[in-house]
Amino acid sequence: MELSSDFLTAAKALLGDKGWRMDAESLEDVSTPWRGTFQGHTPFLALPASTAQVSDLVKLCHAHKIAITPQGGNTGLVDAGTPHGEIVLSLRRMQTVRAVDPFNNSLTIEAGAPLVIAQNAADDAKRLFPLSLGSEGTATIGGLISTNAGGVAVLRYGMMRDLILGLEVVLPDGEIWDGLSGLRKNNTGYDLKHLFAGAEGTLGIITAATLKLFPKVARATAWITVTSFEIIPANAIEMVRSEMPDVRDPNPSELPWRVLCEISMAREAHAREVLETALEAAFEEGLAADAVIAESLTQSKSFWSIRESIPLCKRAYGTAINHDVAVPVSQIPQFLTASEDAILKVSPEAEIIAFGHVGDGNLHYSACEPKDAASPILAEHAAEITQIVHDQAMAHSGSISAEHGVGRLKRDELETLRPPAATQTMKAIKTALDPDGIMNPNRVVRVD
Amino acid sequence: MELSSDFLTAAKALLGDKGWRMDAESLEDVSTPWRGTFQGHTPFLALPASTAQVSDLVKLCHAHKIAITPQGGNTGLVDAGTPHGEIVLSLRRMQTVRAVDPFNNSLTIEAGAPLVIAQNAADDAKRLFPLSLGSEGTATIGGLISTNAGGVAVLRYGMMRDLILGLEVVLPDGEIWDGLSGLRKNNTGYDLKHLFAGAEGTLGIITAATLKLFPKVARATAWITVTSFEIIPANAIEMVRSEMPDVRDPNPSELPWRVLCEISMAREAHAREVLETALEAAFEEGLAADAVIAESLTQSKSFWSIRESIPLCKRAYGTAINHDVAVPVSQIPQFLTASEDAILKVSPEAEIIAFGHVGDGNLHYSACEPKDAASPILAEHAAEITQIVHDQAMAHSGSISAEHGVGRLKRDELETLRPPAATQTMKAIKTALDPDGIMNPNRVVRVD
Repeated sequence: MELSSDFLTAAKALLGDKGWRMDAESLEDVSTPWRGTFQGHTPFLALPASTAQVSDLVKLCHAHKIAITPQGGNTGLVDAGTPHGEIVLSLRRMQTVRAVDPFNNSLTIEAGAPLVIAQNAADDAKRLFPLSLGSEGTATIGGLISTNAGGVAVLRYGMMRDLILGLEVVLPDGEIWDGLSGLRKNNTGYDLKHLFAGAEGTLGIITAATLKLFPKVARATAWITVTSFEIIPANAIEMVRSEMPDVRDPNPSELPWRVLCEISMAREAHAREVLETALEAAFEEGLAADAVIAESLTQSKSFWSIRESIPLCKRAYGTAINHDVAVPVSQIPQFLTASEDAILKVSPEAEIIAFGHVGDGNLHYSACEPKDAASPILAEHAAEITQIVHDQAMAHSGSISAEHGVGRLKRDELETLRPPAATQTMKAIKTALDPDGIMNPNRVVRVD
Repeated sequence: MELSSDFLTAAKALLGDKGWRMDAESLEDVSTPWRGTFQGHTPFLALPASTAQVSDLVKLCHAHKIAITPQGGNTGLVDAGTPHGEIVLSLRRMQTVRAVDPFNNSLTIEAGAPLVIAQNAADDAKRLFPLSLGSEGTATIGGLISTNAGGVAVLRYGMMRDLILGLEVVLPDGEIWDGLSGLRKNNTGYDLKHLFAGAEGTLGIITAATLKLFPKVARATAWITVTSFEIIPANAIEMVRSEMPDVRDPNPSELPWRVLCEISMAREAHAREVLETALEAAFEEGLAADAVIAESLTQSKSFWSIRESIPLCKRAYGTAINHDVAVPVSQIPQFLTASEDAILKVSPEAEIIAFGHVGDGNLHYSACEPKDAASPILAEHAAEITQIVHDQAMAHSGSISAEHGVGRLKRDELETLRPPAATQTMKAIKTALDPDGIMNPNRVVRVD
């Protein structure tokens, strides 16, 4: 996109010296996501310091029909926040905690704040903000809302959209919608916050949010060896140990699956008691073979570190064809069997690593091959394997994007998988709210 | 609205003999909500038996530009489901429980089923569907979703929209969106279910839903006399007893407020223990003066029956100017003081009854006057008092419609209270999805 000197002069003036970058390094930095999966390009990086500046810049873009890609921590996985010619509007200078109301269990924070700032502000007020995921030091509140992030506490607290009470959004014409609110109940029209949440920046730019807080809890963590199926396959532990030899298997066993289970209660003794009771029942019914309950926070963290290391180790291990699928919990065993059978026909030595938030039906499902494989064949079958996994997910009433979103990566595939009425409705909404198509265009749905 | 004979012939043919009514009694029956608050009129009542019939009828209406008011149990309070010339499309013949999946904790049910059918189907599968409210024998799943109903378990389980996994909706052009899904995580585009939930039938007709189920719980119920403020004012108990002399005050006291508190845990002994511990702490900190814990299900029901009788007794008692407001929980004391002060200036003998779901900030706030008042003045000040309550709710960062919705009743007032950007966005969505304005027109937002 060629930017006119009129636009550039006005944009630089309204943003101030610290509010924009055009040097090659800065532009490259925001054109590649942290995992380096996509390569984009942009002519201009805007770094507004306030909602008013975001509004003014969007009004300018609206007048000049300049397309914008909003960007948070740049940790997304579906090519939603990488610019492809659009200017980048980074929220990284907007990190203020605007208000904490412990008696209302709510917190208002700007969209550019990394998740850890919200967690810490809650902690300072003797409260809990429960969202937790691997990239929490980098991923921002605005990005987490725009992608409706999941993470490891979904079973108890829900996804990011479930943790929002209100939003402040700059709309595609630059108007500010001040929908910040500490209310739990507010039936005053269409629920706009749920429309902007998960819209990946295509309907407006989230500039701040009021989030729900919760009472602090004590936790009890157990590492359980089970006979049926569950969250961490034994081969993933082997993979982690081959890449990180210091890691200790909490409970070595020939059985194929492990569960990492954590429960939260007001008092620690009580959490442990409930977990023990549940485990006893699981042993009696033959559902679990063995279990270790963490005796300390350190041990609990060591259990979690195995889980958190799987994605990293998978990349070091070799080729991995990754998927983010969900099926109803009752369908997981059938889905796993059918997918593995079909993949092994294509690539007989593929190793299947299926792990994740199995309590909510979300599996991170990978077909892997070590980098020193004698006759590597996985990479050439990547498209075929992805087709198998996605077909099996759909055949088991599932989804091909459980928590990562759509972006440009899955946009066209989802257009063939969604009911046509859903895609038509989404396009009608997009066109109605962003008639010029300047707001993160062609992510989620393509509108020509 | 004059219906053409072409339309009537086609509508009757597609609906079949049992699928329509034009007799005066049937039309009158659906033109007045159960509390008789609004008087509407309609030329035609459609009673489709299936989603396919709903779709065919809406396609016919779309072709003839006939406006439709969808209707569930007809228990709404804001003039959303009362026809004002539109044909009525009642879902009452669609009550099938389509599927129960206890291992996925989900249930798929048609929109015309009263809430109690969902509760019972969950119970039969040894699960809990937690939404509970006074009208549960009549209010339907479709109506509860369309109005995003609240009820008495919001604190623990959320509002109706939080209990939905998927929806089936007939869109304004008659196309069916099959968004039924048992998935907890599904980031595949704009969250349409949250757009239709709470839209009061203005964007489409909900024909079925997949709902979340939960493990069954044991409960412990306490009736607590507190020194500060809380859910049931002493005068409301007096009012209930004056209308229903058999009702026993569980714990008579001169103090002004009562809390009815219920907690849910997996085991009954444990629920009681937690409740006792919390009460001890409340006594020690001087927050509570006295409390009675229900010793039996019968006693628990008798506590709840006082709470549930308040609306009915209020109507029998005399004039009541009612409001459904919410403020952040931290603002409740200030809101109560400021509202009462201002109302007593206008109507010095008004009795304020403020009760409800105070844990989530939602107060049913009424100014009352006995029907045998010496010099009745309340009714003539109704508009002024409502203005005071709504002004105070807004001044305390609140909402004038916490759980009842917008309808026609609050549509114009909310247009002045919402940020203009919110109303504009809602109108753009309405126009985009229902360009002919046939779907429950002019509820929620007015589109000319």
